[in-house]
Formats: sequence, C-alpha cells, structure tokens
Amino acid sequence: MKVLNLMESVVSEVLDVQMNHLQMNCTCEQCKNDVLAIALNALPTRYVSSTRGQTIQRAKLMDEQTLADVLREISKAAAIVSNKPSHT
Amino acid sequence: MKVLNLMESVVSEVLDVQMNHLQMNCTCEQCKNDVLAIALNALPTRYVSSTRGQTIQRAKLMDEQTLADVLREISKAAAIVSNKPSHT
Repeated sequence: MKVLNLMESVVSEVLDVQMNHLQMNCTCEQCKNDVLAIALNALPTRYVSSTRGQTIQRAKLMDEQTLADVLREISKAAAIVSNKPSHT
Repeated sequence: MKVLNLMESVVSEVLDVQMNHLQMNCTCEQCKNDVLAIALNALPTRYVSSTRGQTIQRAKLMDEQTLADVLREISKAAAIVSNKPSHT
C-alpha cells in the first residue's frame, strides 16, 4: 500500500446505491467513472498511508454531513455527464 | 482504470527528487508514504477517468505554481513526519 484516498470508496459506494435514482441518460462504466472523477474533484481528500488508521478514518467519513456532501456532488456530476457524456 | 488522481504521481515524483534535501530524520517507506498522504490531503485533487485526457491534464499540472504548491506542502509534511513519525 502506498497511499489511498478513502473518499474514493465512499463516493463509489454511494454512487452504486444511488445510480437508479440519478436518472442518467446513460449508465455505462465510462459515464459512471466520469461522475466519480467529477465528484471526487469537488470533495475533500482523505488520504491514509497505512491500514492501521484506515478503519477509523473510514468510519469518520460516514457521518451525515459528509454523506450529504457526497450525494450533492454526485447529483451535480451526474447532471453534467448526462448532459454531455464523454463518449459519443 | 476506474479513476486516478494525477496529483498522486506528481507529488510522488517531486518527493523522490527532493527527498535528500528535506533533511528528514527517517526516510523509510512508511515515513515517505506518510509525507505523501499528508501533502495530498493539503493539495487539490485532479482525478481523471480516462487515459485520453490523462497526458494533457498531467502536463497542465506541471506548471510552476502547482509545483511550488507541491513543494511547499511536501516540506510542511516532511517536518510533521520527521517530528512525529507514525512508527516507533
């Protein structure tokens, strides 16, 4: 393990759960990854450099405010990607 | 490829180049990863979701201001880790 941004797995999981509610025109893997990248670029990072701190840090990330922020950024990113997908 | 934060490779490369100038008490892999994580948590993300945009985005990251920011955050992180290493 070099370093890991815990926010990646949190956003990825929320995206999987919310996918059907986002009403995206296309739900292919590329569109999902585009939403993930756009949302992650709008959210704070939470890098860890050891597995030791990982579980505690991850639990901290699952608080209401963070999840609300993640959902907001995923919804905004989904609208952007739906409106202008990166593939033709 | 799911998503990739280009800032990770930029910070990692600058850290490798600067390692000997940072005068850290310990330069083990854990201390290097700790510096990387602390610096990345203080820098903006640059996630990409396809290899297509990766080269262009990465070139944009190598501008003077970004490299100056990276060097500043690496120096601050090195001082924190040197002062209080996460291993005994």
